[in-house]
Amino acid sequence: MKPLMTLTATVVFASAGLVLADPLPSWSDTAARERIIAFVDSVTDATSDDYVTPSDRIAVFDNDGTLWGEQPVYFQLIYAVDEVKKMAANDPSILTSDALKAAAAGDYAALAAGGEEAILEVINVSHSGRSVADFQASVAEWLATAKHPTTGLGYDQMTYQPMVELLSYLRDEDFKTYIVSGGGIHFMRVFTEQAYGIPNQQVIGSYGNSAFEMVDGAPTIMKEAGIGFVDDKEGKPINIDRIIGKRPVIAAGNSDGDFAMIEWTTAGEGPRLGLIVHHTDAEREVAYDCDSHIGRLCDGLEKGPDMGWLIVDMAQDWSTVYTGDR
Amino acid sequence: MKPLMTLTATVVFASAGLVLADPLPSWSDTAARERIIAFVDSVTDATSDDYVTPSDRIAVFDNDGTLWGEQPVYFQLIYAVDEVKKMAANDPSILTSDALKAAAAGDYAALAAGGEEAILEVINVSHSGRSVADFQASVAEWLATAKHPTTGLGYDQMTYQPMVELLSYLRDEDFKTYIVSGGGIHFMRVFTEQAYGIPNQQVIGSYGNSAFEMVDGAPTIMKEAGIGFVDDKEGKPINIDRIIGKRPVIAAGNSDGDFAMIEWTTAGEGPRLGLIVHHTDAEREVAYDCDSHIGRLCDGLEKGPDMGWLIVDMAQDWSTVYTGDR
Repeated sequence: MKPLMTLTATVVFASAGLVLADPLPSWSDTAARERIIAFVDSVTDATSDDYVTPSDRIAVFDNDGTLWGEQPVYFQLIYAVDEVKKMAANDPSILTSDALKAAAAGDYAALAAGGEEAILEVINVSHSGRSVADFQASVAEWLATAKHPTTGLGYDQMTYQPMVELLSYLRDEDFKTYIVSGGGIHFMRVFTEQAYGIPNQQVIGSYGNSAFEMVDGAPTIMKEAGIGFVDDKEGKPINIDRIIGKRPVIAAGNSDGDFAMIEWTTAGEGPRLGLIVHHTDAEREVAYDCDSHIGRLCDGLEKGPDMGWLIVDMAQDWSTVYTGDR
Repeated sequence: MKPLMTLTATVVFASAGLVLADPLPSWSDTAARERIIAFVDSVTDATSDDYVTPSDRIAVFDNDGTLWGEQPVYFQLIYAVDEVKKMAANDPSILTSDALKAAAAGDYAALAAGGEEAILEVINVSHSGRSVADFQASVAEWLATAKHPTTGLGYDQMTYQPMVELLSYLRDEDFKTYIVSGGGIHFMRVFTEQAYGIPNQQVIGSYGNSAFEMVDGAPTIMKEAGIGFVDDKEGKPINIDRIIGKRPVIAAGNSDGDFAMIEWTTAGEGPRLGLIVHHTDAEREVAYDCDSHIGRLCDGLEKGPDMGWLIVDMAQDWSTVYTGDR
């Protein structure tokens, strides 16, 4: 009997090992976690009617407010303001407008009062007039030192650990994970590979104008002033169609800027999962939705559940919030 | 001694097997083939100074004239003209301009006489006002039946077999292969996966405007009139930076529309390969370069060799031309 007993013991230990390898350890044991795993199990089970072939396993994620924080203002805007401060310290004559003066003073209220035009000016001045390589070196330097005003964490430590785990879990199940964000492509690519395991070619976002120029005898991609494409609202499904050319199987967001992307995803034939991160946790993060000036979420909460979208309740469904809090 | 002899025989046969599995059987035994293989060997050899990590192995290919034919006119324009003919047969009242009348009559000379504006009108009428899905169904139907005027082959049989083999060889060596073409993304994606083994998300090209609309209650990507982006000349490196976010290691083209892309690629640090397909074969294909109305190649021939670019001489370096000729 001994060989059989040994075999049984091996099977028991192997099963225990399988159970222990929880793919989503920072998700609480709630219905949200259960639904995600059941969905992934069904689309990856070759015997299931819901089976999706690996080449069609596309999952798209908004970034700000979905994969990392976005309060009190988008982190990319904090970079832009810090950059204008730095530029003004070198050369105060660049402060030719109220918007730039507000930025140099770190006065976000005054900047917001100037509306979109003011913010665009600060983005233009901080993001253009240099090569992509120089811009990305500047963002990398900022990320290495800047700290968030309320958490004190580095910005790239403010990724949501449960979502980082979800990305990794999906890739283990042969999904291709994409970011589809209102944030800028050149800005995001400085940290997205390391923070999320997502390579540059799977980072989709907004971008400014570019030019191809000879600089010191070398062909160079220069960042220029002006908006090339805003990857928000209807722009998200349009950009997914242009760049990926396939309708995703999973789409995740946190604001009404993600509504069109999730709507288009879940309207596809076959199994689809729409997911919204609802910021309900005033203690560990910030509680906000329909009334927020950033990441406003009204339509998604009102219509999403009827369309079968999974609303993730951050306070209830996540046992950890920030990666840097672990 | 018998075991050793058996082992030796196995090694000999295994080596013979390796030699027989020629990755580029449709390339003649010339310096071009040798240089390509030497380059790939060096960047994939972990002990080489030229080693490139798999995640950076990006290879970009123009399509028209590089991966498939482009004479006597771009095949996408032939689709557009055939489509206008079909639309006019259903409803002659659409023929509201000389350009559309020329298209409906299949009169390419009259169409060319109308210049870019005339061609744009024919593209607009044939490519817009319907969903991406409907447009692609129409292209698929056309590809299944249309024949090239001089070869009599289906258009998707006019891919260049040596280039199809090169794509496959590079993927076997862990390269990610991309198309970066002046052709339209929605048009190309109908055949690129099957013809080249390149998935939709690695097909970069020109595109028209799109809209996200509710059609019969379903969210739909509609193709609209007007140009969104022309993926040609400086647009190619700009689009590679936007979509891939990495400088390629290999870039291949056939016309001066590819010059900027190859220039930017080969100006990068470390090993890079720029490749130009020179159409030298009047017998098996069409011989053309600097004086051609399509695929004009002057700068590449004049400056490319000094920059170390490999000029592939179709007549000399390819033993087969079209995939459909095998």
